Amino acid sequence: MRSGKILVFNGANEKMKLIERELPPIGSEEILVKNLYTTICGSDLHTFCGLRHEKTPSVLGHEIVGEVIEIGTEHSNHDYIGNLLQKGDRVTWSIFSSDPLSMEAQRGMPQKSSGLFKYGHAQVTDNDAFHGGLADYCILKRNTAIIKVPSNIPLSVAATINCSVATVAGALRLAGDLKSKRVLITGLGLLGIVCVAMCKDAGAAKIFTADINAERLNQSLDFGADETYMFQQGNLEGDSALLNKYSNNIDVVFDMSGAAEAMEAGLVALGVGGIAIWIGAVFHSRNLKINAEQIVRKLITIKGLHNYNYEDLVYAVDFMERNYLHFPFEKIIGKEFSLAQGQKAFEYAVDHKPLRVGIRLNN
Amino acid sequence: MRSGKILVFNGANEKMKLIERELPPIGSEEILVKNLYTTICGSDLHTFCGLRHEKTPSVLGHEIVGEVIEIGTEHSNHDYIGNLLQKGDRVTWSIFSSDPLSMEAQRGMPQKSSGLFKYGHAQVTDNDAFHGGLADYCILKRNTAIIKVPSNIPLSVAATINCSVATVAGALRLAGDLKSKRVLITGLGLLGIVCVAMCKDAGAAKIFTADINAERLNQSLDFGADETYMFQQGNLEGDSALLNKYSNNIDVVFDMSGAAEAMEAGLVALGVGGIAIWIGAVFHSRNLKINAEQIVRKLITIKGLHNYNYEDLVYAVDFMERNYLHFPFEKIIGKEFSLAQGQKAFEYAVDHKPLRVGIRLNN
Repeated sequence: MRSGKILVFNGANEKMKLIERELPPIGSEEILVKNLYTTICGSDLHTFCGLRHEKTPSVLGHEIVGEVIEIGTEHSNHDYIGNLLQKGDRVTWSIFSSDPLSMEAQRGMPQKSSGLFKYGHAQVTDNDAFHGGLADYCILKRNTAIIKVPSNIPLSVAATINCSVATVAGALRLAGDLKSKRVLITGLGLLGIVCVAMCKDAGAAKIFTADINAERLNQSLDFGADETYMFQQGNLEGDSALLNKYSNNIDVVFDMSGAAEAMEAGLVALGVGGIAIWIGAVFHSRNLKINAEQIVRKLITIKGLHNYNYEDLVYAVDFMERNYLHFPFEKIIGKEFSLAQGQKAFEYAVDHKPLRVGIRLNN
Repeated sequence: MRSGKILVFNGANEKMKLIERELPPIGSEEILVKNLYTTICGSDLHTFCGLRHEKTPSVLGHEIVGEVIEIGTEHSNHDYIGNLLQKGDRVTWSIFSSDPLSMEAQRGMPQKSSGLFKYGHAQVTDNDAFHGGLADYCILKRNTAIIKVPSNIPLSVAATINCSVATVAGALRLAGDLKSKRVLITGLGLLGIVCVAMCKDAGAAKIFTADINAERLNQSLDFGADETYMFQQGNLEGDSALLNKYSNNIDVVFDMSGAAEAMEAGLVALGVGGIAIWIGAVFHSRNLKINAEQIVRKLITIKGLHNYNYEDLVYAVDFMERNYLHFPFEKIIGKEFSLAQGQKAFEYAVDHKPLRVGIRLNN
């Protein structure tokens, strides 16, 4: 009987526990994957710190890259884009599985379907424990979009594809053609940094970045930013320097910070016909103060996005395959840990706030 | 030498003056139109009441239908959609003229082009006085989109096409396909009422309307609304009854009121993937309070629109041609006046607030 380790999260104030669990037989349409690398996402940290409440016990980690170990007897043997899928293939997969025939999926939002299952967020039960990245294995459920990942992409970089990179791909889909556009990106966590690189790749004319952290602003220059702007912490509201600098001058603003002040400043920066894409606001914060007359007179569009759809995941894999050598993505990993060091890894992430902490598995 | 009357507006606190002016020869690409009917728009009233400041002296009125009197020697002799244009034709026209090669026009926003000219908003000068609806004539400048209007559409109805109806056509363009959608329309001035009819025509599954005015709510039923909701005046903020009724249940909300409370309630009413179209907020009001996390998690889109583009005007003419008999559009005119009674007409509009006051000209 096969078994594997899982790192069990029992709540914000308890240390995670590494335990051995029997691997159940997989379903006929499922795929068993050996996790190779997991990066700790901001939402993992929210849960770890008690800012987000999910059912426990659970196995955290959903930014994962893995290797196919076993394919269910009734699986199509192909990945989402039609490649033959075999044991030994390196793969990424949608952070969710959901009914592709649901109304939401048909409208391009499978991540909001009823009956949604999300990896790294589910409860551990007697029969269902291998569904997170902080474990040796992950069983990929029916209706999970699986895509092969070239093995020359470093594992630490490949791991980020199915959350950060795919979410930013969704942001770009909503923004439309970026060729020759003037882009402002507020918030330079991993989403922001990936957004800089993706906008560069998509042909943006000028990329401006804004954050409260000088180091992250500097880093954005390595990913394609043309000019950086330091938000004045503690006095973000109506930050007049940013407003004067970019006012009515930006075509697309991406907010990856979730900071109300950044989103407000972004709207002021937009010119006529400008588009604001909001991604970062996945936590509670104060209400934004919006001047509706400006939205109307400037014909502004605001689009919110949470997670991503299959098309975005495909774009993300393709983007990273084309660009992993062009931008210093490996530098996003502040420190690397083993699964056994998982608790330490989270503590390090909270204390040091690197773009990502990595967990190298099965080595 | 031909001449015509213009009703001159000199400022909010002065009575308008009817004067006779010589008609200048038209330019080679211009068209001289005899105004037949002008409806007084909300923005005319804003200017009249001093809530909006434009250069004076001016000739108000931009919701106009007219008859072609003379066509410039170098005009194409065709209307915007390719119909032969001749003397005696009844026409509507874009409320603006602008450079079709400007960046804004190329991006689908000719109403925001630099060098924009807007009928009914311009200053009267020695050489240029016939550019408003409160006058016997209007000279249509180069790069004005002119469209023939069937003479069987009542004049009072045809007059509304080139402002209210075309603006609502723009709102529907931004909203996308409305077939089988659940729609909420907040604010039942003429824009709201036209929106109800246009959503009905476009195949919306259910049309809900909300306002603070019971009479207008009732009227919306005649234009295709399925269900009405009375906002509680003075306590609109966080109007919990509306929220409970429609919460997360609406696909598209159109705000035609410009009331912050209505726009806020509309966003709460939207379900996942919902779209809010804001049209009404063309005047100063308090900032909206927006929960960005809800915009993100519900994948909501907000789009502002001011005025409209050529495509919208074409849609508006076609819509009214197909629908003027299906909905009681003639009832929108609360009272009708002559040009000589223009001052009274505005005072009546301010005092009685009908959907529209009409000015019948050249009779």
